Amino acid sequence: MMNDEVKRFASRRKRLIRRFPAEGVEGLLVTTPDNVFYLSGMRGDDSALVVTPSETFFLTDSRYAEEAAETAPALKLIVRTRSMMWTAALQARKTGVGRLGVEACAMTLVQHDELTMRARKVGIRPLRGTVERLRLIKDASEVALIRRAMGIAEKAFKLTLEFVAPGKTEIEVAHHLERTMQDLGAEGPAFPTIVAAGERSSLPHAVPTDRRIKRGDAVLFDWGARYGMYCSDLTRMVFLDRISEFFKRIYSVVLSAQRRSLARIRPGRKTGNIDYVARSYLKAHRHGKHFGHGLGHGVGLHVHEGPVLRAMNEAALRPGMVVTVEPGIYIPGRGGVRIEDLVLVTRKGRSIITSLPKSLDAFLIET
Amino acid sequence: MMNDEVKRFASRRKRLIRRFPAEGVEGLLVTTPDNVFYLSGMRGDDSALVVTPSETFFLTDSRYAEEAAETAPALKLIVRTRSMMWTAALQARKTGVGRLGVEACAMTLVQHDELTMRARKVGIRPLRGTVERLRLIKDASEVALIRRAMGIAEKAFKLTLEFVAPGKTEIEVAHHLERTMQDLGAEGPAFPTIVAAGERSSLPHAVPTDRRIKRGDAVLFDWGARYGMYCSDLTRMVFLDRISEFFKRIYSVVLSAQRRSLARIRPGRKTGNIDYVARSYLKAHRHGKHFGHGLGHGVGLHVHEGPVLRAMNEAALRPGMVVTVEPGIYIPGRGGVRIEDLVLVTRKGRSIITSLPKSLDAFLIET
Repeated sequence: MMNDEVKRFASRRKRLIRRFPAEGVEGLLVTTPDNVFYLSGMRGDDSALVVTPSETFFLTDSRYAEEAAETAPALKLIVRTRSMMWTAALQARKTGVGRLGVEACAMTLVQHDELTMRARKVGIRPLRGTVERLRLIKDASEVALIRRAMGIAEKAFKLTLEFVAPGKTEIEVAHHLERTMQDLGAEGPAFPTIVAAGERSSLPHAVPTDRRIKRGDAVLFDWGARYGMYCSDLTRMVFLDRISEFFKRIYSVVLSAQRRSLARIRPGRKTGNIDYVARSYLKAHRHGKHFGHGLGHGVGLHVHEGPVLRAMNEAALRPGMVVTVEPGIYIPGRGGVRIEDLVLVTRKGRSIITSLPKSLDAFLIET
Repeated sequence: MMNDEVKRFASRRKRLIRRFPAEGVEGLLVTTPDNVFYLSGMRGDDSALVVTPSETFFLTDSRYAEEAAETAPALKLIVRTRSMMWTAALQARKTGVGRLGVEACAMTLVQHDELTMRARKVGIRPLRGTVERLRLIKDASEVALIRRAMGIAEKAFKLTLEFVAPGKTEIEVAHHLERTMQDLGAEGPAFPTIVAAGERSSLPHAVPTDRRIKRGDAVLFDWGARYGMYCSDLTRMVFLDRISEFFKRIYSVVLSAQRRSLARIRPGRKTGNIDYVARSYLKAHRHGKHFGHGLGHGVGLHVHEGPVLRAMNEAALRPGMVVTVEPGIYIPGRGGVRIEDLVLVTRKGRSIITSLPKSLDAFLIET
């Protein structure tokens, strides 16, 4: 790990430690894998952190010990021989932590039982979202990785369009896209790729099937790459040879709704308001009941994280947040359209990370 | 779902319900995805079951409702609009469950809090391994899927050997193997494929790197396919052009250790004893300290499940168990050898599911 990377992870831990008094703890046991990575740069599966004001302990087993010593020299390495909870309890006791926070969204009842039993005088306090709140705001290095993950996803999509043809199945096309992302340096897809052809585009979370793509089909692609552990996420429509009046009509409504919401993104704006702008536009065009999901979500180490862009959400946007804006119209049995971009909230407004065009015929391909 | 499949899942639920009195519950909330699938045939991500003696409720959201109605007609479909725990609590109350078991290894503190709050008079009882104990014994349909997953893994390996050559990186070879499994019908790899060349073969859980394979290398492959949700798992050594004296020596010791343990597999034999046989043989050849992991583990819907073949384990093998037998010798800085087969415990003895040869030069390839 480079020196500035070591500093970056240390400064994240420092920000976390500053929150301890308000949370009523003197240490935090971090067991959510994404949070372990965020605070340490280590991605060991069976690993955890005990963060204390004086020191951070990286608890792992012999498999990851060598990597940890190289990658995270600022951490105190504990190669565990007993269970994770036993080891964590012992470390908290040794370090004199009076009350240890735990991640209530990740910790299981079995882990909690064992930790409580081994912790003796150390109090255990379940906390919610402590590290996730830090992760809401991306620093420059995180934004750079997300941009890179987007660039790979976009390039792979363009290459995959050359492969799309009548007779190919949704699964074949999805595999081709995922493999191309991997060949371009991605660790893999950020989530299972959606390729939904024809009437199947009306399923917001369609799993690719053996359905063959045919001339005249509209095909919905929702995909993203993972690069340097960070995710990208975008949705585009591809049309084979022609675009029916039905798809022309709903595409135009979705695109206008999306542009309106995008234009509102800036610091201080309520997330619920961004959702409201698109939703009320769809409603005004009699498609309110054809849009059943939230408008967007944060993207980072996880493809779905905070903030959530959803009706009534009062939380405000802040510089450094990275969110999707993805309205859709889904009409069961006929088809659906979704258009999704990824956006960085900047100090003065927004920067759209997605660069693929989105005019109606941007991906009208002749076969 | 075919009629006999419907019956198979129903009979699994019946066996589960028979355990309720001993567990002190009148219903079980199943939230572990593998267990949901095992009992229902449904693989929805955000889905759960409430199993009661009179009826089983499948709790899901609108995304999976259509599939559930088709696939699992014997279940009562509940399309949830509130949180999973709220919905589960409501269902337990409506059905008159006095005490509801929950899966303590999967349930988080946050879920438990919400469930307890919403359950009112329904008592919540954390249970451990209730469904997992049923899963220890595979029925004929499960064994058939595991055999199919093994067949795909083996065929893909043979095809990948044609791709292995000096200059290829570990990652390239691992990708090739995983893609070939997918092309042969696998849903994907059963776990991240290990391809570890030369001295890196000494890392029992090596992650493939950009290290290039070269002439004279020994390369450890540990891989498996997922088919019909079931896993396969095996390990073989590949040698490029020649086999050094070092690898000849340790290969022969590992193979003998493995054969000895395999020969002991039969119903009634203690799992700890199977481990002991290989371990004591390695120890007698001065390699005891070079074998740091357990001898094997069960394989099914998860690539690591019960039973565990580990020192001192008193549990006995039973017909229908499917386990790996995978001794190894790992010498840091020099290299390692592991040989792994998958075995079904039969009524009279064993049936080795893996069919790839394992003589020293079985995969000695000329480049």
